[in-house]
Amino acid sequence: MGEFDLIARYFTRPVRKAALGVGDDCALLAPAPGMQLAVSSDMLVEGRHFFADVDPEALGHKALAVNLSDLAACGARPLAFTLALSLPRVDEAWLAGFSRGMWALADAHGCELVGGDTTQGPLNICITVFGEVPAGQALLRSGARPGDDIYVSGTLGDARLALEALLGHITLPDDVLARARQRLERPTPRVPLGLALRGVASSAMDVSDGLLGDLSHILKASGVGASIDTHITSNLIAASAYISSARGQFDPNFVHQCTLAGGDDYELAFTASPARRTAVAAASHSSNTPVTRIGTVSAEPGLRLVDAQGQPVQHRYASFDHFQ
Amino acid sequence: MGEFDLIARYFTRPVRKAALGVGDDCALLAPAPGMQLAVSSDMLVEGRHFFADVDPEALGHKALAVNLSDLAACGARPLAFTLALSLPRVDEAWLAGFSRGMWALADAHGCELVGGDTTQGPLNICITVFGEVPAGQALLRSGARPGDDIYVSGTLGDARLALEALLGHITLPDDVLARARQRLERPTPRVPLGLALRGVASSAMDVSDGLLGDLSHILKASGVGASIDTHITSNLIAASAYISSARGQFDPNFVHQCTLAGGDDYELAFTASPARRTAVAAASHSSNTPVTRIGTVSAEPGLRLVDAQGQPVQHRYASFDHFQ
Repeated sequence: MGEFDLIARYFTRPVRKAALGVGDDCALLAPAPGMQLAVSSDMLVEGRHFFADVDPEALGHKALAVNLSDLAACGARPLAFTLALSLPRVDEAWLAGFSRGMWALADAHGCELVGGDTTQGPLNICITVFGEVPAGQALLRSGARPGDDIYVSGTLGDARLALEALLGHITLPDDVLARARQRLERPTPRVPLGLALRGVASSAMDVSDGLLGDLSHILKASGVGASIDTHITSNLIAASAYISSARGQFDPNFVHQCTLAGGDDYELAFTASPARRTAVAAASHSSNTPVTRIGTVSAEPGLRLVDAQGQPVQHRYASFDHFQ
Repeated sequence: MGEFDLIARYFTRPVRKAALGVGDDCALLAPAPGMQLAVSSDMLVEGRHFFADVDPEALGHKALAVNLSDLAACGARPLAFTLALSLPRVDEAWLAGFSRGMWALADAHGCELVGGDTTQGPLNICITVFGEVPAGQALLRSGARPGDDIYVSGTLGDARLALEALLGHITLPDDVLARARQRLERPTPRVPLGLALRGVASSAMDVSDGLLGDLSHILKASGVGASIDTHITSNLIAASAYISSARGQFDPNFVHQCTLAGGDDYELAFTASPARRTAVAAASHSSNTPVTRIGTVSAEPGLRLVDAQGQPVQHRYASFDHFQ
């Protein structure tokens, strides 16, 4: 199978929103009047972001999910994406699985594949995603204000828990691993929540490299500090019941490592004025996405962790950095 | 140097056209009213698109140039791009050179870097480029009509000539190799010509995989055929004087192989009604880009090559395909 047959078979469908899709030198997008186009790119590399033997359908899902997560963090509605794919060889079973996972998520979000590139080389997946947001309404990292509540959606740390098990660092019961692995391999981009938080959240970003590291970007961009209640965040790991029952097996800091610096959560971290608590609850309800209040923005710079009694927790939880 | 320092040092500059640039979850673009956004992605892989020891400054130029070439082919004005970069390690000399080449070309075209991704892995460069074109005015592949003239810009085949020499298949004098290598490593995206051809050309695309293969995409999209004068295309290789003088060294079909199926030319192939010859000449002049008429569109399907006497030329010049 040649390059063009491959594109035609696995990666070409008619477009409805875009003015022109796959098949010319460029795709053409026509944002509606008053709309800005939100754009984000994420690249996934074998051995770095996923194991060589990962289920290709899960990989197709995840490659698009991590990009949709960036749109969610800006409160943008998904429109379209491009896919650039470097493949060692044409493996039809792999392509069928990968494209099936990708299309299923794309269809769920009404997000159209409009173009891209296919080449031979080490497995590498680069998706650029496009969304629409009314001018001036995008959720940015820079809007957090002292006194704002800090929230996170969903659960934290299960992806890291699965990774540690898959790397052989820990052992988990099959059912616990299976659930955690779903979070690692099939993250849920929080697009409905991001849309519901327009005009409610004062700042937002997605948690991809670990909560503390990602939150520090909001704090830096907003020129503020924060305190986070680690008693609350520790309970946000979905496997918390198992971990409590098997506490002796884990280092006491292990749960903090997973929940505060785990990586691959793809939840939204956001801030909102305490005056908007009812609106945040409504956004959570209308988007069918749990959110938890985990701390408070302060004028004093820095990120402070406190326990259930408000006492400081010592920490040095590094965020993921590709080159450190 | 960590990931965020790297981005800050080499890949962050203030934006003027975009509503939001590097540093948040998404960039924000606001196309002007009535404008469509043209989008294209190209991925370059070490060992496939460039040699491991290529000058990083040339590589930075080329990675953006091949994307701008797609905008040129659509008649779109460059606005912005995202850069996703997978690097084996942080090599500051390499990053300095790569970013210098990239910024020089970006500045020349007023094209802003608005976002992207940085990760560790085998060297892979994926750029997605954004341009503006008035709604309905994009140059597409589907507009060629029987009787239209077929043109190509600039020169053809020198990039392939350089590649054959660098692979050790042929030997070239230093000065000939140096000039050909410039064409391979520092292609000139024909953006001004693409803009000048709006409303003039009936179809256009960029020549990246070889003239015949790429032209066949126009013919297929337009439902037409074509005849090409190989006497004319043979003279479009810039090294033609040297090749004539050293004719005995080369297979008689070598020049056809380079000019008709060479790859990496990044010229524009386009069609226009014979009634627009004066307008094509004016577009060539205003954009300071030579163009040559090389053939004619026909209603009869297929691609026919003829010699100076109009006699058929037998051919089987394959276009580049990553998986064949």
